[in-house]
Amino acid sequence: MTARHNAIVAQGGGPTAVINQSLVGVIEGLRGIQGIDKIYGARHGVRGMVEERLVELQSIRQAALDPIARTPSAALGSTRDKPDQAYCQRVFESLKKHNIRSFFYIGGNDSSDTCRIINELAGDSGFDLRCFHVPKTVDNDLVENDHTPGYPSAARYVAMAFMGDNLDNASLPGIKINVVMGRHAGFLTAASALCRERETDGPHLVYCPEIPFDIERFAEDVQSVYSELGRCQIAVSEGIQNKDGEAIGATLIKGETDAHGNVQLSGSGALGDSLANYLKEALTAQGGKPPRIRADTLGYAQRCFPDPSPVDQHEAREAGRFAAHLLAQGESDGSVSIVRTSDAPYTAQMKRIDLTAIAAKTRHMPEEFFDGHNNVSKKFTDWLRPLVGPLPTIGWI
Amino acid sequence: MTARHNAIVAQGGGPTAVINQSLVGVIEGLRGIQGIDKIYGARHGVRGMVEERLVELQSIRQAALDPIARTPSAALGSTRDKPDQAYCQRVFESLKKHNIRSFFYIGGNDSSDTCRIINELAGDSGFDLRCFHVPKTVDNDLVENDHTPGYPSAARYVAMAFMGDNLDNASLPGIKINVVMGRHAGFLTAASALCRERETDGPHLVYCPEIPFDIERFAEDVQSVYSELGRCQIAVSEGIQNKDGEAIGATLIKGETDAHGNVQLSGSGALGDSLANYLKEALTAQGGKPPRIRADTLGYAQRCFPDPSPVDQHEAREAGRFAAHLLAQGESDGSVSIVRTSDAPYTAQMKRIDLTAIAAKTRHMPEEFFDGHNNVSKKFTDWLRPLVGPLPTIGWI
Repeated sequence: MTARHNAIVAQGGGPTAVINQSLVGVIEGLRGIQGIDKIYGARHGVRGMVEERLVELQSIRQAALDPIARTPSAALGSTRDKPDQAYCQRVFESLKKHNIRSFFYIGGNDSSDTCRIINELAGDSGFDLRCFHVPKTVDNDLVENDHTPGYPSAARYVAMAFMGDNLDNASLPGIKINVVMGRHAGFLTAASALCRERETDGPHLVYCPEIPFDIERFAEDVQSVYSELGRCQIAVSEGIQNKDGEAIGATLIKGETDAHGNVQLSGSGALGDSLANYLKEALTAQGGKPPRIRADTLGYAQRCFPDPSPVDQHEAREAGRFAAHLLAQGESDGSVSIVRTSDAPYTAQMKRIDLTAIAAKTRHMPEEFFDGHNNVSKKFTDWLRPLVGPLPTIGWI
Repeated sequence: MTARHNAIVAQGGGPTAVINQSLVGVIEGLRGIQGIDKIYGARHGVRGMVEERLVELQSIRQAALDPIARTPSAALGSTRDKPDQAYCQRVFESLKKHNIRSFFYIGGNDSSDTCRIINELAGDSGFDLRCFHVPKTVDNDLVENDHTPGYPSAARYVAMAFMGDNLDNASLPGIKINVVMGRHAGFLTAASALCRERETDGPHLVYCPEIPFDIERFAEDVQSVYSELGRCQIAVSEGIQNKDGEAIGATLIKGETDAHGNVQLSGSGALGDSLANYLKEALTAQGGKPPRIRADTLGYAQRCFPDPSPVDQHEAREAGRFAAHLLAQGESDGSVSIVRTSDAPYTAQMKRIDLTAIAAKTRHMPEEFFDGHNNVSKKFTDWLRPLVGPLPTIGWI
């Protein structure tokens, strides 16, 4: 490695409430490393690297770093771009020009794949570059991790939103559908069950993408709960699929896809409204007064609501620092993985994993986290509880 | 008034994060009053009074009352029923049977009208009953109040959701519509602007029901902001109306109305999705790559998210106590009004107002709280700030 050189950090994919903790962690970690001169930040991920939209981060005082760290969303800006070979070539040119020899990319599985591609192409091109991936995703769908920074804060939001909504639904009884983020993995939808205390607390039904969704069975499930309790609160993942693996949401929303070929699922109420309309017809058909049916789609508040989990804040910061530590240790590339070392009291540690072990792979909810086709297990809530921070306590009459 | 008698308390309309503070306030206030024997709670408002679904509240220990008070939504259950004369007659029969001579109804303007109707019919029937209304509504649309319990907590949620969403939108730029509750009044939609700090912070456009909504001018507004900033975050009230007073949402949603003749606006993403689709066509028509357009409908989290404003919690409790105090003072009926007595430091006091002064009347945003047809004024945010409690601080690069 060249004697004096610069480093760059960037943020990719959907933002989270703690992605700036990881950014600040990388900056803090790089500061102590000999040979590192400038620490650049790229605006809007790899796009900013190509367009040379760089900011210098090495001289930001600690007193200014802390407020940045606790600010939700990506302070440098993010991107959905996924570079091909030609794009990468432009990245290298920009990096060479600025004597940048290490690249830290904070993002999800698409970003880890970007990191892997750049790392491999750098090797092929004989460009001396060290690439490190710092995990983040509210979906929690990265393999080789107990959980991923960003998920605990999103899970905290979902758990609290469902807690309030369950009480709302108990007060004015009816059928309430809440659509939760999670394209391929049900972890965030499952978090809806965290605050159940009483036998009758919602969500009464939880549908994740891992288990094929049958709309007729869905209507039967709802009818059954409604007949028993006079109300029904339902958690539905935006990514629910039929038995052929076709996304229920995608069949309802026309066309728009991103650079990774993914259909837009968030930022629309279409899935929830369609399910509500289906239930209105299915349940009215059985005669009698139709129940009150409503659907909310939880939306972007899930990933950026400014009330993060303290555990998540801490771990996201540590993950950034650990990535810088990997560089200092002489590692040439890798991703950071969170390994749980104890359940009670909760403890975890960071370890390095290969980029190829994580890149573009999708983790799903394990079978033991489910309880039948429409519920989650105690094993799941026990696993989640230490991650989300203190939750409100309630009382009832 | 009869020597020894009982009191009843009930909750009506959409729940809030602090309506149980008022419930506990009424119980606390009634406990000290001589002559009051039992304190009944009616399940699901006036419906529980008719159906004699009563619970006794006088013996709940203070240690159990506090957790109830801090629990969002209506602990007794709520209702959308609005009694006519025949319904009221059944209410009186139930009250007589249980020797109930005072009625406390915690609710919004529909509930204050129910309270007024029951009070008048009791007078006409020669039934000795004292009726007190304790205000609550997230819409803040009750006249004769500086603000209404429930609104500050909902405003806190909306302000925080927009804060996070603005940072999200800055990170992955595009056009983002967020639909906010408020059928006739823009107070809650206006709260979206509370956390703006920088010149470029969203929401960049705010549309309230008080100002006629013109969809072509809307598209021009969005185009103008998007051209300047490369992004646009928009707050839209669910109750926006055209110049003929027709609700834009109601024209898009088929049919369902409640007992008050109101069309369903919440619990559906239809308004946001329709506006997003309109923009997609209007802005694409101008040529070039269509911008990324998303719509979220904030949903029931606005009224029951379990993170209430401390000021709101305190005032809602005091409003309940004050209503009981009115009974103790020998008042025969009335509603509780919050009067602001100082801006800085913020102070307020409670006063009694006539039921007829408030019942079924709708308060709108005053003109001075607006800044043009698509923004709110500093006067508004100055008015709101002391009500919502501490907000997160942020940092940026």
